[in-house]
Amino acid sequence: MSGGLSGMFDPDRVAVVGATDRADSVGRALMENLLADFDGEAVPVNPGRDRVLDRECYPDVGSVPDPVDVAVVVVPAAVAVDAVREAAEAGVESVVVITAGFGETGGEGAARERDLRAVADEYDLDLVGPNSIGVLSTPAGLNATFAPTMALPGDISFMSQSGAFITAVLSWAEERGLGFKDIVSLGNKTVLDEVDFVDHWGDDPDTSVVLGYLEDVSDGRAFIETARETTGNTPLVVVKSGWTDAGAQAASSHTGAIAGSERAYEAGMDQAGAIRVETVEELFDFAQVLSGQPLPDTDDVAVVTNAGGPGVMATDAIGASDLSLASFAESTRADLRAVLPDETGADNPLDLIGDATVDRFRDTLDTVLRDDGVGGAVVIACPTATFDYADLAAVIRECDAAHDKPLVTCLMGGERATAAARALDDDGIPNYFDPARAVRSLDALARYRAISEREYDAPAEFDVDRERAREVLESVERRENNRLGVEAMDLLDAYGIDTPRGEILTDPTDAEAVARRYDGPVVMKIVSPDILHKSDIGGVRVGVPNDEVYDTFETLVARAHNYQSDATVLGVQVQESVDIDAGVETIVGMNRDPQFGPLLLFGLGGIFVEILEDSSFRVAPVSEREARTMTEEIDSAPLLRGARGRDSTDVDAVVEAIQRLSQLVTDFPAIEELDINPLVALPDGAQAVDIRLTVNPTQL
Amino acid sequence: MSGGLSGMFDPDRVAVVGATDRADSVGRALMENLLADFDGEAVPVNPGRDRVLDRECYPDVGSVPDPVDVAVVVVPAAVAVDAVREAAEAGVESVVVITAGFGETGGEGAARERDLRAVADEYDLDLVGPNSIGVLSTPAGLNATFAPTMALPGDISFMSQSGAFITAVLSWAEERGLGFKDIVSLGNKTVLDEVDFVDHWGDDPDTSVVLGYLEDVSDGRAFIETARETTGNTPLVVVKSGWTDAGAQAASSHTGAIAGSERAYEAGMDQAGAIRVETVEELFDFAQVLSGQPLPDTDDVAVVTNAGGPGVMATDAIGASDLSLASFAESTRADLRAVLPDETGADNPLDLIGDATVDRFRDTLDTVLRDDGVGGAVVIACPTATFDYADLAAVIRECDAAHDKPLVTCLMGGERATAAARALDDDGIPNYFDPARAVRSLDALARYRAISEREYDAPAEFDVDRERAREVLESVERRENNRLGVEAMDLLDAYGIDTPRGEILTDPTDAEAVARRYDGPVVMKIVSPDILHKSDIGGVRVGVPNDEVYDTFETLVARAHNYQSDATVLGVQVQESVDIDAGVETIVGMNRDPQFGPLLLFGLGGIFVEILEDSSFRVAPVSEREARTMTEEIDSAPLLRGARGRDSTDVDAVVEAIQRLSQLVTDFPAIEELDINPLVALPDGAQAVDIRLTVNPTQL
Repeated sequence: MSGGLSGMFDPDRVAVVGATDRADSVGRALMENLLADFDGEAVPVNPGRDRVLDRECYPDVGSVPDPVDVAVVVVPAAVAVDAVREAAEAGVESVVVITAGFGETGGEGAARERDLRAVADEYDLDLVGPNSIGVLSTPAGLNATFAPTMALPGDISFMSQSGAFITAVLSWAEERGLGFKDIVSLGNKTVLDEVDFVDHWGDDPDTSVVLGYLEDVSDGRAFIETARETTGNTPLVVVKSGWTDAGAQAASSHTGAIAGSERAYEAGMDQAGAIRVETVEELFDFAQVLSGQPLPDTDDVAVVTNAGGPGVMATDAIGASDLSLASFAESTRADLRAVLPDETGADNPLDLIGDATVDRFRDTLDTVLRDDGVGGAVVIACPTATFDYADLAAVIRECDAAHDKPLVTCLMGGERATAAARALDDDGIPNYFDPARAVRSLDALARYRAISEREYDAPAEFDVDRERAREVLESVERRENNRLGVEAMDLLDAYGIDTPRGEILTDPTDAEAVARRYDGPVVMKIVSPDILHKSDIGGVRVGVPNDEVYDTFETLVARAHNYQSDATVLGVQVQESVDIDAGVETIVGMNRDPQFGPLLLFGLGGIFVEILEDSSFRVAPVSEREARTMTEEIDSAPLLRGARGRDSTDVDAVVEAIQRLSQLVTDFPAIEELDINPLVALPDGAQAVDIRLTVNPTQL
Repeated sequence: MSGGLSGMFDPDRVAVVGATDRADSVGRALMENLLADFDGEAVPVNPGRDRVLDRECYPDVGSVPDPVDVAVVVVPAAVAVDAVREAAEAGVESVVVITAGFGETGGEGAARERDLRAVADEYDLDLVGPNSIGVLSTPAGLNATFAPTMALPGDISFMSQSGAFITAVLSWAEERGLGFKDIVSLGNKTVLDEVDFVDHWGDDPDTSVVLGYLEDVSDGRAFIETARETTGNTPLVVVKSGWTDAGAQAASSHTGAIAGSERAYEAGMDQAGAIRVETVEELFDFAQVLSGQPLPDTDDVAVVTNAGGPGVMATDAIGASDLSLASFAESTRADLRAVLPDETGADNPLDLIGDATVDRFRDTLDTVLRDDGVGGAVVIACPTATFDYADLAAVIRECDAAHDKPLVTCLMGGERATAAARALDDDGIPNYFDPARAVRSLDALARYRAISEREYDAPAEFDVDRERAREVLESVERRENNRLGVEAMDLLDAYGIDTPRGEILTDPTDAEAVARRYDGPVVMKIVSPDILHKSDIGGVRVGVPNDEVYDTFETLVARAHNYQSDATVLGVQVQESVDIDAGVETIVGMNRDPQFGPLLLFGLGGIFVEILEDSSFRVAPVSEREARTMTEEIDSAPLLRGARGRDSTDVDAVVEAIQRLSQLVTDFPAIEELDINPLVALPDGAQAVDIRLTVNPTQL
């Protein structure tokens, strides 16, 4: 056991502060749970009692004669902070606050939560809760919760932001025979949160899968960094609830958490290496298979079945997943033909037909698992008179033991197959009625294998002119609305993002002079902090010949004042034309998320992002590989790469622009939102033609 | 009981042709199953035996003294057709052929299947199979299958193209307590197929839900027409397997069926009013809820829970479905506040918090169900010390009885809740551990309500020039490759689809003269049956001014011969220009599917269909409503309706063009494929600019 939290899960002595004999009380339930199986000592603490459940009771933690490792606090909210302080002063390092009535109730409770945090900081406490149902760890027989069921032993560790969900899972897992290593009810996460437990369990040799039910993530960046470490060795499967608008609203009224955007969670969870699931069924299906089965070497799967129909269903599920149906090697096919009846083919899905015996299952399963091109197998057995489920289970267990490849089964025999399914379960082989569900579990193994093999490159660090960028951003302090437009193009230049040549002029004669220095007609844009959507008011003119620059200047200024008579006009930008017809317009943007920080967006311009919502998101900073994936995973990606007979654009230049923007928004937390729209991807290079950003001057 | 198939499911006397005592034989298993529960008489027929299982055995069906309603044939394949003929001659009207070795084995078996069909046609037999495991009907206690388990009684009727899947479902349904009315193993569907049973069960008052496991649909159009009738009153839930490429290949090698396209199945199932599901779990979840619960009046759902977390999960599932979270009426909220503790809000999802009693569940559930804005409810109960699951189940049953609104439950108590869940199940109230699964079932009710309320308008019949169209199609007979191009534009004109003026000329001087009659520059296209992709060889020129028509004519012809020296050149089309910039290019196409016939496609031109696969499909003929939906359901639909500051196009004209094309391809089965690309949607009207089609002259 390693990590700073081992004291929480493997204590010698636990004090229950607020322990009582009173029937139906949380204090009594906790004492009873601790007295049931705990290898260590459970000590009641309550100044009003001498004995609790026949144990000597102490007035305070300091009076307990032996060192206390964990204090579980169940006293009323009004005295809970004092109780925590007292325990800390007595030398306790780990505290679990069961008591509710903190931040989740607002007002007074929120103040109380701040006090609790201050005490925890002062004494450097590992503190779970408040508003938690407690912690549980099976190796030590520790049930420091008030849930009515102890977990079965196992290697799955589980954290949940809903305490009630833990009680439900415990009841249900008992029925299903699913075991756990540690369980923690996170409560309000005043001190310890998901990041701490992901970190701890990542180093815990007795935890082979980490599960989370999360309603928010306290610190997105820390979560990504920590989870990347953990998920290299240990799978992390998460239900992040509140992923729909309706759910997010319900979650936020439930926990008081500020909702981050679903897109940030989607990107952040993926960047963290977490396998995100939407349903409880998947959460535990995936936990079970990841705990019990090895990872496949390839994504190619064999289906061995005694019935065609369910074999097709499994094949459909494979087709719908990232898995593929394995092609058997010629030698495998020869071996299969030797053991199969003549009317049966040797193709995958392998139909053993209705008179299949257990021997036929064994011979074929063993044969296909010996094929190097087979990563794992689904075994499907409909009930027939020619085999017995108990015998089949024995054969499947044999094959499972003989081959280091994942197996999942569909023993579709109802009660006839119950005992056999349980025997498989004891060996960590999951069984389902639905072939699609079996395949999804196999797919989870393949997904995790890909995650465990990921390499996380460091983001590139470009040589940039940070001071010049800061000066541009500081110019916002002279604005009322914290917004900047084309006048901030220098910001991009300072970070090495190519922009067409351009200048902001306040005089039409100067404008004309600048235009003459550029090749061909120019683009002219009104520059005014009061005009957010320049195009909408006719404030942009493209293809302006030199001899029309003077008049156009005056027209643009007139339009600005027409739109808003007191508009501040900083001037007119004269910009060299970019040959948009030779390129593809893209959008690169950033929005700062409350949990995950800078969220980058990439997509094609025009209708693609705005109407088709065809866009890719990543939490910054991004590596070159991540930036490239953003340009590849949008549906319209082929357009960047020369679809429909056009030249390919310079995707490398776009990828570099994304990375440079990533560096910019990481360097300057003051940038709240930023859009480069369009960034024109050209056959050679990429040019940022327009920019819009919002700056928070207090962060500068 | 009505419909021609009642004799199959409710016979007085069943003969088993090929009955035997031989252990482990199908003939014995069938006799045993029939003797177990059948209200009628089971008669063994076998010329080699006097008695079977202690019953008098007859040498042939004709010798059975009383009339036989159903003959179940289990004799070897070589004599099966004779056995069927003999039964038919003896007056039997319904036959179930269990025997395998017909079309599914190819060659000789296929010939045997043709013979079987001929006999069935001659005697007008209702024939199930061959290669079936039989039929089963619980009201009569009829188990004319060799499956080892009889179904429990119920109101779900189930057809399956996989016999093994039926045996699996029977075992599993027994464990789950799920009952059936009729079950039929369709086998090779030589005579009776899914259409016959959908028709029969649609009129069966004892069937409240029809389920199908199908690997193909024999006659797509008949399926759509029949299912539309049935699904007005009776839900039809279907797993159509082989919906992925991998699955389709597996299914076709399993049944020998010609795979129709997944897009045709997707469109056809939807047009039929079938609820299509992908997994076995959904098939039976939906069956159970549709059988046990009423349909909701609205899609707005209440969530009543004693735990916040699972309430959020249910809310997420609602957000991800077509359901919505109901907003409670002010009076409902007042009533809720009267029965809820102060710290609880009266909002949906309604969190009764952890100390909820059964009374609190009753009061709140009753209150929300009285709200007219609530269509149905999900009740979630995590285990706590403050209520008992048996009592809660009683309260939920009470509320279910008192309100004609659907209820689904998540009693998340594991073994503690098993008995309660069973009690709910007895009342048709489904229970799940996973809140998302509960919501999906509620959503199935709402989906079916929408289907049952559908109105299927007749397709419009436009006044068209069918003879002229036929002449154009017949011109293909002078071609080698059965393809037509712009020279077939008259086909569209004959069916009232607008085309720009155009003529095909064989002389450059004539071309110039025609061009001068049109306004402005013209479009010129090479016309050659040997050149499929005109643009690719530079065979199309747009914006040709009058004085360049002559030279362009010669260039186009030269390019054609350059591409293929012996290319047949029919001439050059000179076409009036359509102002594409003022409109939106769309594609309207048709592909003839082997099962469903003419499958229409609609999407936007350019990248939308080809790269983004943003398209809509319907089986023709389509009504005006269906054609309009095609223009609405693509992602890029806003572009037709004037997104991004453009004028809206004349969508009505597009909708009419789709309907006219629908009529054309329905009138002429000889048209195998047809693309109008582009059909330019203009601010006023829609113009078909180019056409390509393949014709099967043997169908003319």
